[in-house]
Amino acid sequence: MSSDEFRPLNESSLVEYIIATPALSSKLGDVSQLDNLQIKEVGDGNLNFVFIVTGPSGSVVIKQALPYIRCIGESWPMTKERAYFEATALKEEARLCPNHVPEVYHFDRSMCLIGMRYLEPPHIILRKGLIAGIEYPLLVEHVSEHLARTLFFTSLLYLTTTQHKRAVAQFCGNVELCRLTEQVVFSDPYKVSEFNRWTSPYLDKDAEAVREDNFLKLEVAQLKSTFCERAQALIHGDYHTGSIMVTQESTQLIDPEFAFYGPMGFDVGAFLGNLFLAYFSQDGHADHENDRKTYKKWILQTVAETWNLFHKKFTALWDEHKDGPGEAYLPAIYNTQELQQLVKQKFMNDLFHDTLGFGAAKMIRRIVGVAHVEDFESIKDAGKRAGCERQALDFAKMLLKERRKFQEITEVLSSVQQLHS
Amino acid sequence: MSSDEFRPLNESSLVEYIIATPALSSKLGDVSQLDNLQIKEVGDGNLNFVFIVTGPSGSVVIKQALPYIRCIGESWPMTKERAYFEATALKEEARLCPNHVPEVYHFDRSMCLIGMRYLEPPHIILRKGLIAGIEYPLLVEHVSEHLARTLFFTSLLYLTTTQHKRAVAQFCGNVELCRLTEQVVFSDPYKVSEFNRWTSPYLDKDAEAVREDNFLKLEVAQLKSTFCERAQALIHGDYHTGSIMVTQESTQLIDPEFAFYGPMGFDVGAFLGNLFLAYFSQDGHADHENDRKTYKKWILQTVAETWNLFHKKFTALWDEHKDGPGEAYLPAIYNTQELQQLVKQKFMNDLFHDTLGFGAAKMIRRIVGVAHVEDFESIKDAGKRAGCERQALDFAKMLLKERRKFQEITEVLSSVQQLHS
Repeated sequence: MSSDEFRPLNESSLVEYIIATPALSSKLGDVSQLDNLQIKEVGDGNLNFVFIVTGPSGSVVIKQALPYIRCIGESWPMTKERAYFEATALKEEARLCPNHVPEVYHFDRSMCLIGMRYLEPPHIILRKGLIAGIEYPLLVEHVSEHLARTLFFTSLLYLTTTQHKRAVAQFCGNVELCRLTEQVVFSDPYKVSEFNRWTSPYLDKDAEAVREDNFLKLEVAQLKSTFCERAQALIHGDYHTGSIMVTQESTQLIDPEFAFYGPMGFDVGAFLGNLFLAYFSQDGHADHENDRKTYKKWILQTVAETWNLFHKKFTALWDEHKDGPGEAYLPAIYNTQELQQLVKQKFMNDLFHDTLGFGAAKMIRRIVGVAHVEDFESIKDAGKRAGCERQALDFAKMLLKERRKFQEITEVLSSVQQLHS
Repeated sequence: MSSDEFRPLNESSLVEYIIATPALSSKLGDVSQLDNLQIKEVGDGNLNFVFIVTGPSGSVVIKQALPYIRCIGESWPMTKERAYFEATALKEEARLCPNHVPEVYHFDRSMCLIGMRYLEPPHIILRKGLIAGIEYPLLVEHVSEHLARTLFFTSLLYLTTTQHKRAVAQFCGNVELCRLTEQVVFSDPYKVSEFNRWTSPYLDKDAEAVREDNFLKLEVAQLKSTFCERAQALIHGDYHTGSIMVTQESTQLIDPEFAFYGPMGFDVGAFLGNLFLAYFSQDGHADHENDRKTYKKWILQTVAETWNLFHKKFTALWDEHKDGPGEAYLPAIYNTQELQQLVKQKFMNDLFHDTLGFGAAKMIRRIVGVAHVEDFESIKDAGKRAGCERQALDFAKMLLKERRKFQEITEVLSSVQQLHS
């Protein structure tokens, strides 16, 4: 099919489409009964249309990309080819970490349409769970597993140069989504832009200070270069707490439409940065029934354990596959335990600093850039919201600028508590 | 034409090919007289067949890539597709810097054949001129111009992300040549390899010391990662003094078959590193007629002036195009003279350290790796040769490990003179 055949689906054309597509209809039950499918449009994200379709014996999720950004409208065009990169990344991630990525049942490139597993209740978006103050005992284990496996196995620690460059070339095609990240994460917050917003007037001076902080802008330039130039591994590209669905037992990474070969720290940092945003928003959700103090501790502990367990799992994969196909560190060169240890330390230390830098940049853009997070937005009292946001912003600025001074995640947490006890 | 039509040319089939190809025959004169073309095979490089074809009114160079590495033979296969990347890079470089790149008249992808300008006498390979002790008064001006223009205009300082990622993807196809560099520059010299050689027995201990230097191997790993992952600009990929043809008036960069999007410092470093090799070889070429002392000073001066003039030209291009299409440093963010100055300083300082690191790695591999340089090889007395090589090797190891301590090229030159006065 050529891409000329693209047409946006509505509820009725969707039913026809599903009935004509066995890979989808077979999940829903007897086709003869499919004319009374239940369809719910649930796309609360920024970009796409998402339908939950329920038949007599099951449900599927149908996601269709349209050639613009949904939350802004046709005035901000955006290639619908992103669906191809999302489907490709979902399949690759599912291959590497099947327990934490929804299965793709069907992909139609010309329709920019993905049919995938419906994540049944009580799955909710992690961000909503964090706002509600819910602890997830397996979150650390699952996220660190997903990060370690998807990043390790798509890097030169495991792939040959030939495999790696082929994959890099393929994902270079997802350039429009990369450009969007460049703009909204690394550029707009640091300049006057019609898209920026913040809790005004409270944060007017804070937003201005971001735009006038030379040292901050110098450091952001370096992170942006790394983002644009360093094809280290297949990254999800949008690894925030809104891209994760959870229950007490399950953790599922969704929406990798920003996927490309980029720096590992961008994914790890996005997750930790969004946990920090959740942390700083907690005072805005506290009430006399729950002061959120215990929950704030749980969030910080989750930050620390995620990094530490990611570190452990990632280096364990490295050890396990040190004689594997990866061409970065040949065993004939890195041929003693001591040297292998040194190499890993240096690698993980650099990755830690990238993680802190990117995490901080992701925090800043959520406070003074175009797209905000529900963690703060759901705090109705603007003055209280601004107070929480300012603490997060101050912490993020410090972290971005001083990231190389930190050697351990516990040092980062101490600095949070100094700033905000 | 499909690639099935590939056939290696000999002198007689080459004549037929040229007569059938107006883009070539038109450079040589009256076609009716072309049956007595003069043909000379001159491929003294490591990889390809190169013919100089002379007709009644002109000459052309014909370069054909075969599916293996010429100097090793069919036992080391190497994609002949490299001719496509060479032709593409030659055209791109010629567009950006026409005075210093030979014009491509004809490219035949299925035959892996490039027809290009013949660089007439007295053009010689720069390396041979350096061995002969010849000064080139315009070399610095020309090389710094070629480096500055080809690197600046293919980087995100000038290109949009969209243009950049498209070009990165295209050159990912040149992966076999990248792998060859990875092996011979960043891997083999640091391990036991059947391909390595050195002036034995003199340098046996020196070669062993390279293989057992943990700190050196740690630093080489980082350079290798940068080489494999960082798509900063379209680099020539083999920018040594054997890839440059010179006269007193002309400087021409040839043989970019290793071209891909990589770190800028790899090209700048290759040139400076090979000048250092020339420098350290001079004592082996000294005789009672010429002690080469003046010439050694000229080489060091050439190193310093090349970096300094490259720096000047590159930052001048940046200033000139700061409001251009490049998306790395938006003028709305980097919006004061002071900040623009800071950003450039940081960028050039990082590039300087990359340059020193890659330059040092290129020196080391020429002394203990597979492919040596005529600068040393032409010193007949093995003991004397080893003495020169050891000085070069010791300097290169120091430079690779300590590169971040240097802020100015003059400091590097002082350290050469300390080591070797």
